[in-house]
Amino acid sequence: MTRQLHLGAFLLESGHHVAAWRSPDVPDRAGLDFGLYRRLAQTAEQALFDAVFVADSVAVEEGPGAERISRSARFEPLTLMSALAAVTERIGLVATVTATYNEPYHVARKFASLDHLSGGRSGWNLVTSDNAAEAGNFGRAEHIAHADRYARAEEFLLVVQGLWDSWEDDAFINDRDSGVYYRPDGRHVLDHDGAHFKVRGPLNVARSPQGQPVIVQAGSSEAGRQLAARSAEVVFTAQSNLAAAQAFYGDMKRRTAEAGRSPESLKIMPGVFVVVGRSRAEAEDKQAALQALVDPVAAVGLVSRMIGNFDLSGYPLDEPLPELPLTESGQRSRQQLLSSLARDGQLTLRQLALKVAGGRGHLNVVGTAADVADVLQTWFEQGAADGFNVMPPTLPAGLDDFATLVVPELQRRGLFRTRYEGRTLREHLGLARPAVGAAAGFHLKEGV
Amino acid sequence: MTRQLHLGAFLLESGHHVAAWRSPDVPDRAGLDFGLYRRLAQTAEQALFDAVFVADSVAVEEGPGAERISRSARFEPLTLMSALAAVTERIGLVATVTATYNEPYHVARKFASLDHLSGGRSGWNLVTSDNAAEAGNFGRAEHIAHADRYARAEEFLLVVQGLWDSWEDDAFINDRDSGVYYRPDGRHVLDHDGAHFKVRGPLNVARSPQGQPVIVQAGSSEAGRQLAARSAEVVFTAQSNLAAAQAFYGDMKRRTAEAGRSPESLKIMPGVFVVVGRSRAEAEDKQAALQALVDPVAAVGLVSRMIGNFDLSGYPLDEPLPELPLTESGQRSRQQLLSSLARDGQLTLRQLALKVAGGRGHLNVVGTAADVADVLQTWFEQGAADGFNVMPPTLPAGLDDFATLVVPELQRRGLFRTRYEGRTLREHLGLARPAVGAAAGFHLKEGV
Repeated sequence: MTRQLHLGAFLLESGHHVAAWRSPDVPDRAGLDFGLYRRLAQTAEQALFDAVFVADSVAVEEGPGAERISRSARFEPLTLMSALAAVTERIGLVATVTATYNEPYHVARKFASLDHLSGGRSGWNLVTSDNAAEAGNFGRAEHIAHADRYARAEEFLLVVQGLWDSWEDDAFINDRDSGVYYRPDGRHVLDHDGAHFKVRGPLNVARSPQGQPVIVQAGSSEAGRQLAARSAEVVFTAQSNLAAAQAFYGDMKRRTAEAGRSPESLKIMPGVFVVVGRSRAEAEDKQAALQALVDPVAAVGLVSRMIGNFDLSGYPLDEPLPELPLTESGQRSRQQLLSSLARDGQLTLRQLALKVAGGRGHLNVVGTAADVADVLQTWFEQGAADGFNVMPPTLPAGLDDFATLVVPELQRRGLFRTRYEGRTLREHLGLARPAVGAAAGFHLKEGV
Repeated sequence: MTRQLHLGAFLLESGHHVAAWRSPDVPDRAGLDFGLYRRLAQTAEQALFDAVFVADSVAVEEGPGAERISRSARFEPLTLMSALAAVTERIGLVATVTATYNEPYHVARKFASLDHLSGGRSGWNLVTSDNAAEAGNFGRAEHIAHADRYARAEEFLLVVQGLWDSWEDDAFINDRDSGVYYRPDGRHVLDHDGAHFKVRGPLNVARSPQGQPVIVQAGSSEAGRQLAARSAEVVFTAQSNLAAAQAFYGDMKRRTAEAGRSPESLKIMPGVFVVVGRSRAEAEDKQAALQALVDPVAAVGLVSRMIGNFDLSGYPLDEPLPELPLTESGQRSRQQLLSSLARDGQLTLRQLALKVAGGRGHLNVVGTAADVADVLQTWFEQGAADGFNVMPPTLPAGLDDFATLVVPELQRRGLFRTRYEGRTLREHLGLARPAVGAAAGFHLKEGV
């Protein structure tokens, strides 16, 4: 079969453009509008997306301009995805959950439960927490340093994957006659005792339809790449140009092979911010209308947070961005991306703020369906992507546009499915269902 | 308006009878059958129940006979209730979550998210974890001692309630023209710093439709009663006879008044295990059929766990139960209840095991709809209950029986609603919606 690309629908309140919430065609208070999310998930499913995807943070947005963006009131991802599971049939459900301020037993259990609720459609986007605002909600004055939080995340994942294999697929025999509900030899005790966690198990959820929910990883730092190469099945990444994306793609496939895994077992999906119109002029008008709604205070606040919670609100808007130090806060790889965007383009702070106001440093495409498909096809065929996480500028309109204009164009080119072949997220992504004990890096003890 | 009783539908896999899963009319592996739970919730909603209720444990069942009961594979409550929110319209959704091995920010956030998803129908049954199996899944060799876990639970609840009031009801003004998404003076920082938790806030969820999700409390020990009197809105309790239930009811109403609250602001809902038939003989036959399926190993295992993880599997089945010490494990009040059941009835171990095989020490009623209604009416009118948490012996049949036989009988007597008057769980229960800052015992700091 011809290789086809994979699509995620990245749902984010009123849309990905920082001024989306000010757009006249989006609902009020979209982050807590379940009717909207239900409609979005159903639209994405009708358009045959592999999955819907939600980001997360365990804190409100802080700092200058926080009250001017729409990120401080939103659904918690696992509750949202569970509700969406009940009103969809086939589409994957990828929820972001931090490994930094959580317990692996709870996380393993909730994703396994979601996998059962949805008939095998759950995925976990494993992130580490990157700011002091989150730390303060979990009893810490300072967040955990970058290297430490990745070491903890890797052990966390090991425990979660071990717990997901607590039971053989056929352990629960439900034998009414003999009175035996499960086979004791189908039960595994993890008994993990590591540097960060001590977790006995077993999990009180049967092995789930996918065996293991799909592991998504979104960090592109050195530590993030190492973790992804060893353990992830999908990498969501921010890449703003083809050459950088190709380099990242090649590096990740190479690392995956070096980790002893098939390069096809890791799917690379850059984010793509897409403004699409029936004509190029219509697309550009849509983009211009959104850019005109950008509040400089809000946009500079966004850059400040992306660049590592370095407060830029006092800096002159129309002078070049100064060289900024890497901080322990924020996503390391995103700090580097923004710094190089500003330096390479010789951008002023205002120009940088406007540039990231839409796609936050991800690939941006503004044009017709053919223009968008051209870019996606190029990236897909030239070693930069296995698929894309689509970031609509506004919701629901931006997703409707992608579904009705771009998806048919990709289908005409043979690049995207015309019906779901499988029923689980793994099947949509072409990922094998792992046997008990086969997930990366962990070893089961004997039964009971 | 005449006082009417409240009904919860306590959903538990294949049913509350320990042998339910062996009954021919229940689904296989019911604990992870979402189609079953959807049907149950919709049945309960059609029958106008106030809420569905699920119990929880953060460990598998351990000990002799654990493989002979159906409790080790089940949905995680918050994911399950979120999915049920999407397929129901009016019924309340009460999920059990332990305050012992959790973080208040996560718990506050998920219940607030569920409250938004469901349009104001969420309730939290706050429990403390009571066994070493749970402790072992969260990095502890021993569980937290009884008194300590209640002190921790009380502070935990204080933090959760504070976080639920992070935002004024009208903070998110979504003002497109001015670009202001929320009023900074509508935002409250909790800045809690106590013996067990240090949590800054605010919560990243807007104040929810109910203002505060409903607080349910299920412990009936001295520490549990103190917590309930100060902070709970519903008490779920196990009472096996009228006199004891009246004493408990009177004690809780008195304590509530002493805590400075209206006695009506705390609803007392004993559990009731109901086997109902169209004739008394039919009901008795149903009960006998279930009792005949009881596996002594499974039933003695159940008693062992209920009595504080004291392994009774070596004790002779047909001799009186010896006096057992109170342990730090298991529910303290349930240990006392079982000991007195055995002593007062001079029961052998087998007799006690068979007695608790259905209702686990709760009120048991076997009979016609009129018989059941007589008992419920007596308890309701004679100061023993404000309503009941209904524990069907098998599912779905036992709930269908209650809905089609008992509910109409209660309605004929004017004891139960004939339509939903309200839309939220608070409205069903006749509980006021608290103003910001009014939840028991906590004090907001000034804005931002």
